[in-house]
Amino acid sequence: MEILARAKALEAAGRDVLYLQTGEPDVPPAPRVIEAVRAALPEAQRYTHSKGQIELRRAIAESYGVRHGVVPDPERIVVTMGSSSGFILAFLSSFAPGAAIAVTRPGYPAYLNTLVGLGFRPVEIPVTAENGWRLSAADIEAAHARTPFAGLLFASPANPTGASVDRTALAEIAASCTRLGIRLISDEIYHGLDYGVPSASALPLAADAIIINSFSKYHCMTGWRIGWMVLPEDLVRRTEMLQQNLFISAPTLSQIAARAALGETEYAEAQRARYAVNRDRLSRGLASIGFGLPGLPDGAFYAYADVSAFTNDSLDFCMRLLDETGVASTPGIDFDRTDGKRYLRFSFAGSPETMDKALQRIAGFVGR
Amino acid sequence: MEILARAKALEAAGRDVLYLQTGEPDVPPAPRVIEAVRAALPEAQRYTHSKGQIELRRAIAESYGVRHGVVPDPERIVVTMGSSSGFILAFLSSFAPGAAIAVTRPGYPAYLNTLVGLGFRPVEIPVTAENGWRLSAADIEAAHARTPFAGLLFASPANPTGASVDRTALAEIAASCTRLGIRLISDEIYHGLDYGVPSASALPLAADAIIINSFSKYHCMTGWRIGWMVLPEDLVRRTEMLQQNLFISAPTLSQIAARAALGETEYAEAQRARYAVNRDRLSRGLASIGFGLPGLPDGAFYAYADVSAFTNDSLDFCMRLLDETGVASTPGIDFDRTDGKRYLRFSFAGSPETMDKALQRIAGFVGR
Repeated sequence: MEILARAKALEAAGRDVLYLQTGEPDVPPAPRVIEAVRAALPEAQRYTHSKGQIELRRAIAESYGVRHGVVPDPERIVVTMGSSSGFILAFLSSFAPGAAIAVTRPGYPAYLNTLVGLGFRPVEIPVTAENGWRLSAADIEAAHARTPFAGLLFASPANPTGASVDRTALAEIAASCTRLGIRLISDEIYHGLDYGVPSASALPLAADAIIINSFSKYHCMTGWRIGWMVLPEDLVRRTEMLQQNLFISAPTLSQIAARAALGETEYAEAQRARYAVNRDRLSRGLASIGFGLPGLPDGAFYAYADVSAFTNDSLDFCMRLLDETGVASTPGIDFDRTDGKRYLRFSFAGSPETMDKALQRIAGFVGR
Repeated sequence: MEILARAKALEAAGRDVLYLQTGEPDVPPAPRVIEAVRAALPEAQRYTHSKGQIELRRAIAESYGVRHGVVPDPERIVVTMGSSSGFILAFLSSFAPGAAIAVTRPGYPAYLNTLVGLGFRPVEIPVTAENGWRLSAADIEAAHARTPFAGLLFASPANPTGASVDRTALAEIAASCTRLGIRLISDEIYHGLDYGVPSASALPLAADAIIINSFSKYHCMTGWRIGWMVLPEDLVRRTEMLQQNLFISAPTLSQIAARAALGETEYAEAQRARYAVNRDRLSRGLASIGFGLPGLPDGAFYAYADVSAFTNDSLDFCMRLLDETGVASTPGIDFDRTDGKRYLRFSFAGSPETMDKALQRIAGFVGR
């Protein structure tokens, strides 16, 4: 947020800023999503069912059939305000107050802050560039042996690394969780944005996992604040009651937009194809400048680059890069308070031209 | 929710159902709100500043100038997902884990359930029909002497009773809170919907109070999930960080709608005038049937009626009333687990014709 404010200030002062710090697509949702909202505007005013409009929940359920070969009961689906309220509902419905819940390091900073804000105790499981930033069942077993935890919140593809685990590895992670009595919360919000093997869902692999997803990334709908959870049977009633009391229901218009978005795979896939080009261009460009990457990111739209060849304080580097070249990135300490000083995250959810201009400017900056 | 499901099932079976159980206006927001959203649709896609669009925060700040003679710094305002996420942010930013927080009984059931869901300990302060359901400073002092609490969440006008306290009484409540070291959270979501003296805000009365408000009721925007908080200086930074991590930002389109709504006072006042007529009609009608009311409700759009002349189980009465006449109401146990069996809540946010039809059917029902 401070980077963004500084970038906006530079832009206001007449500078050309390249926003590679962003966590959102640079395009609106599909035109038909906008059309659906326009058509619904006069009547979409009231609260919906707490779990969300049944038509949307049915459409979400069916989308699992297409992608993952399994159609969950729509009654197990709760439509949420982005993935954000999904995390809150997952934590509060599943764990005792103060419970220990594991996340990877590096990881999405809101995980830690939300857990701490709600009074839970986060346990960090380090993942490494050497392993492509991928979490393994062995990592979980080792971490659990050191400090037991009741839950694991895990994203594949992951922010900030873009790392994905394949179906076999995810099945092993789920099996480890079941064996150790750990509730798995599978954050699948970057699903669909994959560039190698298709994203594997925990849904067909773990009957007791909570699935969290969102329309923000694949469907380009960040500002609409709309997502969903698929719950295991034993948590449905409790989660529904929490949703009723904590949030009432997700925004009605966003539910209508979301339903339309599910039909717009072609548009979403066109964005993915664009990111795929950017991913190659940005990753190879950063590597040629001397930034360290363990390979091309598997998914999402982030390159998490080791800049320790140039600095031992990536926050300072990030600020100077922004001030001197107008390239905005995100410092690694946002994602990893231990080793983040060596890293910067660059988003490739922009245009190819933005990637090229950014690479040119970064090369000039490190060359000075 | 169960009442609503039963009512919908009856309607689906061909019955004429009158929805007096509802907590929302029966009309959409002002036409210009819809127009503003239509115009913004192509570009309103991205996250906003976590605290909300500055234009909206400025407009909210200025609205306090008009109604309450004081304009808060827009930096003290956080735009939220309805009042719902405002409550969560208020609790988490202000209180230690497990803190005791007081609410009135009867009161809005989500208060208790959200507090318990987040691990806080609710303390109930009973208010009585004899006192017009109004909380007094003396009630607070007495309750605090019995069981100390760190916070007071208080609504005026209140749900389910429609009770309001005037400016003098609210100043006394705020002064008691300050003296006892209690953080006051003033729920002002029914502000504007008052039928006697104008609603008094805690903003000019208590420098350390948290103000919570919403566009749902006065501006007829329940399904848009948009509200706001005005924070005391000492909580701004912490609340902003919680908002960033827990919710990112409120829905962008709803923020645009909200800004337009602030200019549509004439429309909102026209709805109030309609509710004012309904309030008289419904309250007098219920009283003439033999339901107990301590007077006309001061604000909001609810009549909380004592039905103990007819039943000692208002939930059963409510269900039979619905099944036999199609009139949906809300049982008092939703608002008061101790004495709620004697009460039913009726909403008058419908049409005058609905009020008349409902009264006729209720009279027929109790006459049988």
